[in-house]
Amino acid sequence: MPFNELPAHVWPRQAARQEDGVVTIAGVPLPEIAEEYGTPVMVVDEDDFRSRCRDMAAAFGAPENVHYASKAFLTRRIARWVDEEGLALDVASENELRIALAANFPAERITVHGNNKADSFLRLCVEAGVGHVVIDSHQELGELNAVAGELGAVQDVFIRVKPGVDAHTHEFIATSHEDQKFGLSLASGSAHKAAVDAIGAANLSLAGLHCHVGSQVFDAEGFKLAAERVLGLYATIFTEQGVALDYLDLGGGYGIAYVEGEEPLDVAGVARDLLGSVRRVADELGIPAPTVVVEPGRAIAGPSTVTVYRAGTIKDVHTSNTATRRYVSVDGGMSDNIRPALYQAEYDARVVNRFVDGAGVPTRLVGSHCESGDILIGDAVWPEDVASGDLVALAATGAYCYSMASNYNAFGRPAVVSVRSGHASEMVRRETVEDILSRDID
Amino acid sequence: MPFNELPAHVWPRQAARQEDGVVTIAGVPLPEIAEEYGTPVMVVDEDDFRSRCRDMAAAFGAPENVHYASKAFLTRRIARWVDEEGLALDVASENELRIALAANFPAERITVHGNNKADSFLRLCVEAGVGHVVIDSHQELGELNAVAGELGAVQDVFIRVKPGVDAHTHEFIATSHEDQKFGLSLASGSAHKAAVDAIGAANLSLAGLHCHVGSQVFDAEGFKLAAERVLGLYATIFTEQGVALDYLDLGGGYGIAYVEGEEPLDVAGVARDLLGSVRRVADELGIPAPTVVVEPGRAIAGPSTVTVYRAGTIKDVHTSNTATRRYVSVDGGMSDNIRPALYQAEYDARVVNRFVDGAGVPTRLVGSHCESGDILIGDAVWPEDVASGDLVALAATGAYCYSMASNYNAFGRPAVVSVRSGHASEMVRRETVEDILSRDID
Repeated sequence: MPFNELPAHVWPRQAARQEDGVVTIAGVPLPEIAEEYGTPVMVVDEDDFRSRCRDMAAAFGAPENVHYASKAFLTRRIARWVDEEGLALDVASENELRIALAANFPAERITVHGNNKADSFLRLCVEAGVGHVVIDSHQELGELNAVAGELGAVQDVFIRVKPGVDAHTHEFIATSHEDQKFGLSLASGSAHKAAVDAIGAANLSLAGLHCHVGSQVFDAEGFKLAAERVLGLYATIFTEQGVALDYLDLGGGYGIAYVEGEEPLDVAGVARDLLGSVRRVADELGIPAPTVVVEPGRAIAGPSTVTVYRAGTIKDVHTSNTATRRYVSVDGGMSDNIRPALYQAEYDARVVNRFVDGAGVPTRLVGSHCESGDILIGDAVWPEDVASGDLVALAATGAYCYSMASNYNAFGRPAVVSVRSGHASEMVRRETVEDILSRDID
Repeated sequence: MPFNELPAHVWPRQAARQEDGVVTIAGVPLPEIAEEYGTPVMVVDEDDFRSRCRDMAAAFGAPENVHYASKAFLTRRIARWVDEEGLALDVASENELRIALAANFPAERITVHGNNKADSFLRLCVEAGVGHVVIDSHQELGELNAVAGELGAVQDVFIRVKPGVDAHTHEFIATSHEDQKFGLSLASGSAHKAAVDAIGAANLSLAGLHCHVGSQVFDAEGFKLAAERVLGLYATIFTEQGVALDYLDLGGGYGIAYVEGEEPLDVAGVARDLLGSVRRVADELGIPAPTVVVEPGRAIAGPSTVTVYRAGTIKDVHTSNTATRRYVSVDGGMSDNIRPALYQAEYDARVVNRFVDGAGVPTRLVGSHCESGDILIGDAVWPEDVASGDLVALAATGAYCYSMASNYNAFGRPAVVSVRSGHASEMVRRETVEDILSRDID
């Protein structure tokens, strides 16, 4: 694909290159945003984000069956978009819950995750009236029941089940095998015991079972297999305890395209396949089919956002007697996007302020941090006329970039700007050295 | 080693376990700090930090020959300690420089690094009167000369040389091979050209050459080999240009012990070996021996600090039909220490509020983040009586933990407390959800 084209699936749906070579998102030229808000700046295509909420809602039957995983990218404005689209919200920490509540997200549409929920967190969940708490351990089950009892409430809960399904994904973020911190084992009977205990607990009401097969999954097979195994547990509970469960929460992991040539998971097709499979298995088991809910984070937030950097130092390095590699430095790096260093993640980057047309040269895109591993794109071929001062944007940076950003080398975190219908609006202001020093006590 | 003992070299020099089992640092019981400041909390042993400054100063002949690498851990108070000990300071970004200046660190003892220094950064360097700017590219050389010219100044500079020496360290943080973003190649003649250009530039004064062989280096060989090669360039410059250079900056990378059984680099021995080698090579080359300066960050800050967490959920997981692993969750994780996930770094952890004496069980220490890769210590054997509510401290977290910390899962960053002579003093206050929301625009 020519360097001046933007790979579909990878770039936001409202991204386009104008006749003058400038890239716009939702009609807003990225150079204008860079001029007004500085660089690096993250630009979120609001309609892209909302449209993926709607695609998921359509695929899974209703907006409330889709729980946006806020750990991917959460601001109050994003919580509001999710609310306006009718989706539910997953949070995995007390502060994520507090941010959701600060955005007036309806508590009854919030599901709460976490392997180590503090007493104060459980208390806040019950007091706020969250829809569901996903119980991750026997210890938590007892603690939550006690907290709910103290507060005179009955808390709806899911049990997080380890179905033992490996979705063949990246080792670091696969979460379905047994030897991991999340969930209660199906195989050992631990999940069954927790379900029975939850049913028997005075201040808990078992509303569903949860499992999660991994991240960046691209087909339905892992989800289906996990669903089948968890439904087996449900059948046992239904038979033994006479309790019907409203929900089967199949977690997240819906894969997206990060680079040219990758295809995102076919959400509609996978959902159809998965929902059909769940109905069929429930019929076979003679249990009422539960409502399937899912928890996409990356699949909603990821493709919505690009990070715009300004190119600075350009340096040609001899990698052998005959070969060179061009190092293009930009004004951010591993502080605003740790994923290449942490997960060897790949990204697509383009020059967005003009056409570049030179012959291709081996190019590495690096950040400005004092660390040689600070590489954004390790191995690309870029036109030789990319120059200092050009604006370079990485696509699909909406998930796990801002949310995992640091102040490494005392870099302030970027500004975040949302765009819609030709208008840009600041969503998170750039972090300054004064912000960093605001907690520093000499 | 018994679990209740604290491995020397790994724990701060003022760490000790009292007769009641409580661990103190500089006489301050860690449970008292946890009580007052909450958890997770990072506790910095000021005397440990200062003593390592002095050890380095003694080894390398004078405090000003030691440039503390602020990227490892920088607050205004730390900058003040470094200043009071007479050391110089390395900064690698505009904000690191601003923090140093905010701490009234003398600009003339500041050396400035970076592969992509913006014009505004170079301008601040010259205006503030920093001691040395380490030039990393031909492009920067021209830009800095122009900026200094505009400001009517002559800026002392080093040239960062890639000597092509690989110190056999971790792939991600080795920085001496040719195919990387930092420095100018010795082999290709690029470093020589830059040195000649710097000598010829009206507003630059070449004061030294710099190289960096890697991180976590444990012997003098890599440093000596790199020094020898860079001195060869110096000899060429001396002969051709008649210019004597004051400094040979051999960078950082001095290894520390993270876990029991590891030995830190012998600073005094390596320094003696290295300084002797430099004098000998300079004599052989017939050049005046330059002053050797070094840039330790981790070797000064790393062992000074422990991170104190509170244990929460404890869960036994079947890893086979016959084996189990205990998962101990703590109230922090990859947000306050990304190094295990990013570099597969290992740490030593101990219970610090009491003795634990049970039989050993396979134990994994995990954080509270919504990610299965959020593991602090993957494979340990811990007494079975470790319990929820216990305080667990990781040692040697002074370098690249706080400086790379994130708000993942909207976790606020820990409080940082320094201790000395029985007194604790807050150095960075805990980050709150209000801090996180302070930049959020709905």
